[in-house]
Amino acid sequence: MSKSKLVRPHGGGELKPLMLSGAALAGEKKRAETLKKINISSRETGDLLMMGCGAFTPLEGFMTKADWKGVCDEFKMANGLFWPIPITVSTDDEAVKEGDEIALVDSDNGEMVATMKVTEKYTIDKAYECKKVFTTDDMEHPGVQKVMAQGKYNLAGPVKVLTEGGFPEEFGDLYGTPAETRAIFEKNGWKRIAALQLRNPMHRSHEFLAKIAVEVMDGVIIHQLLGKLKAGDIPADVRVAAINALVDNYFVKGTVVTKGYPMEMRYAGPREALLHGVFRQNYGCSHLIVGRDHAGVGDYYGPFDAQKIFDQIPEGSLELQPLNIDWTFHCFKCGGMASMRTCPHGKADRLLLSGTMVRKTLSEGGQLPPEFSRPEVVAILQKYYQGLEEKVEVKLHGAATGDVKK
Amino acid sequence: MSKSKLVRPHGGGELKPLMLSGAALAGEKKRAETLKKINISSRETGDLLMMGCGAFTPLEGFMTKADWKGVCDEFKMANGLFWPIPITVSTDDEAVKEGDEIALVDSDNGEMVATMKVTEKYTIDKAYECKKVFTTDDMEHPGVQKVMAQGKYNLAGPVKVLTEGGFPEEFGDLYGTPAETRAIFEKNGWKRIAALQLRNPMHRSHEFLAKIAVEVMDGVIIHQLLGKLKAGDIPADVRVAAINALVDNYFVKGTVVTKGYPMEMRYAGPREALLHGVFRQNYGCSHLIVGRDHAGVGDYYGPFDAQKIFDQIPEGSLELQPLNIDWTFHCFKCGGMASMRTCPHGKADRLLLSGTMVRKTLSEGGQLPPEFSRPEVVAILQKYYQGLEEKVEVKLHGAATGDVKK
Repeated sequence: MSKSKLVRPHGGGELKPLMLSGAALAGEKKRAETLKKINISSRETGDLLMMGCGAFTPLEGFMTKADWKGVCDEFKMANGLFWPIPITVSTDDEAVKEGDEIALVDSDNGEMVATMKVTEKYTIDKAYECKKVFTTDDMEHPGVQKVMAQGKYNLAGPVKVLTEGGFPEEFGDLYGTPAETRAIFEKNGWKRIAALQLRNPMHRSHEFLAKIAVEVMDGVIIHQLLGKLKAGDIPADVRVAAINALVDNYFVKGTVVTKGYPMEMRYAGPREALLHGVFRQNYGCSHLIVGRDHAGVGDYYGPFDAQKIFDQIPEGSLELQPLNIDWTFHCFKCGGMASMRTCPHGKADRLLLSGTMVRKTLSEGGQLPPEFSRPEVVAILQKYYQGLEEKVEVKLHGAATGDVKK
Repeated sequence: MSKSKLVRPHGGGELKPLMLSGAALAGEKKRAETLKKINISSRETGDLLMMGCGAFTPLEGFMTKADWKGVCDEFKMANGLFWPIPITVSTDDEAVKEGDEIALVDSDNGEMVATMKVTEKYTIDKAYECKKVFTTDDMEHPGVQKVMAQGKYNLAGPVKVLTEGGFPEEFGDLYGTPAETRAIFEKNGWKRIAALQLRNPMHRSHEFLAKIAVEVMDGVIIHQLLGKLKAGDIPADVRVAAINALVDNYFVKGTVVTKGYPMEMRYAGPREALLHGVFRQNYGCSHLIVGRDHAGVGDYYGPFDAQKIFDQIPEGSLELQPLNIDWTFHCFKCGGMASMRTCPHGKADRLLLSGTMVRKTLSEGGQLPPEFSRPEVVAILQKYYQGLEEKVEVKLHGAATGDVKK
């Protein structure tokens, strides 16, 4: 199994991390202080961090209008490189002009994230991008909201990244760069590696996806999103604790690597599955597990559109392949986990709980059946939901005694 | 998925079925009556039937001494073709000589199986073949026994096959030629197909192997051996009934094809796994499921030697790839089927029954736990074992009353 090498980074060259280090970093930080500052959104920060660690190899910065158009229309940049979603930065600042050197500042925390040489300033049709990328311009869609809230102008140009956004400090070993995961895979002698994309705690259906991959691959990387989610999603620290509890108790050591990456969800469904494929290839993965409604939200995408799209892109777009797995669940008649492809029984035999039902049960302090979620995982989620409950109670109590201003 | 074609037959050319049909068959049968007759063993008959249906493509007959030596020593024939086990026919007949046309007759039932032009008559070191192929010349090994019982001379030469050995008549649709399974796969739009080799009824561990493959492939062929087994193995008709009961009740229609092939077991472990790979490629399979102790017997082979050997043969020997899966079982702590790669728990949590234990339970009319075997399967096996019991009782009873001669 270990005879051959890992998949090459996207584009076929070397990893291209845009994060500076040492004297270059110190110097650039100093220079950045002197530059015009542009505030950027959390999504833009996340994309810069992905460029910084090499996960967006071979990008060298934010996309030009020609790139933007090519990516929207044909999944490729002006230079012909396959890319599924525009990676852009925007501003309303009228004063910024082509040729400017600017500093990009995270508007959430004021951190200087990168410097950039502006090579192009252009306007886009935001609704057009939304319809292409999200297949909708419905303002209820969380990804659409962010595009529509962008500044009036997009700025293109190469970037130098100045920070890892605090992720290594906050998440320790869980944070890993593509160079680091590649080194781990090589040390393990792995060549066939499937990535399990996660932005929720792992219930048994996710465990089953990972375990199918463990059965037939050299190894699996449980690869969590550490960037921002939408309101109501479980925060990263709780999810990390729940996933660790599952891995510690139900996986064989040496078959699974658990890591996180700093991007934010766009909820672009099929297009985002492709982006997940692009950067997983950079992390050294030969396969991306694509299950039901991958990177979807609401009812915008067909449940298996994200699998189908891998067949619709030109051959050779990616070295990474999808590992498509059907809708998974526990079936009492099968006596174990199964999918629509392997269980011939009916709804009555299957344990199917909606996300809403799961959240309701947990927030009311109820138990989830062990066929749905491991007790070790449920305990952590119950604790989190109880905490939420207490916070709400404290707030209400405070309000009642006049401590909290409206 | 259906964009590309099936794997090519072994050797890269067209399927080469050596079975005659129509007028050619009638004429050759007539001519065979006039030829010198040589009795052959059930193993040799099985190999001829495999050549007849195209499963041994691109062989044109029995191997020469140079082929035999190359296959024993280097897994390849004199023409350089990869082949893992000698395919030979033998005789003690001193009168047969090179240039003779002979008829090969199944010594079990007297059926004329093939005609052959003898191009070479040679002797071999049988013990040498056994040590190479079986890694042992222990006479307790059922494969060794058959080689050591061969005639004094091997005969090489092209064959014309005259029969399908009664398999289509006995097994109906279950019998399928490589051309037929390829047509089914193409009709289904399948490209990635895993073969599950079976010579025993399917318990849940085999069901699990097949289902892992269903999850990640286009489809699975449950491919049963219909040729001879060793004493004590479950006969084909009982096995077929048990497998049908399992497939009907626990698999999704359209994910599994069930077929059989007419070869006999050699119990050559790793080498036989390679032979299983060669002919599964001819049947159109891209993958062969290789589990624990594939094609093994007793303790002659390490439990995963048959997986390792696929890494030891020269690259490009086969288009088919192994789908290696670890030792599978039900784990009560996992709450379902698992393997050594996916279950981190201990022996006490796992349901592990030896073949001996299973046979003992069934022959005593006992139940197997549903975590080990599906009730529908157990019912069929119980009936079979009860029948055996009755036969033994009848025999004993007959003997006692003097009805049965010694």
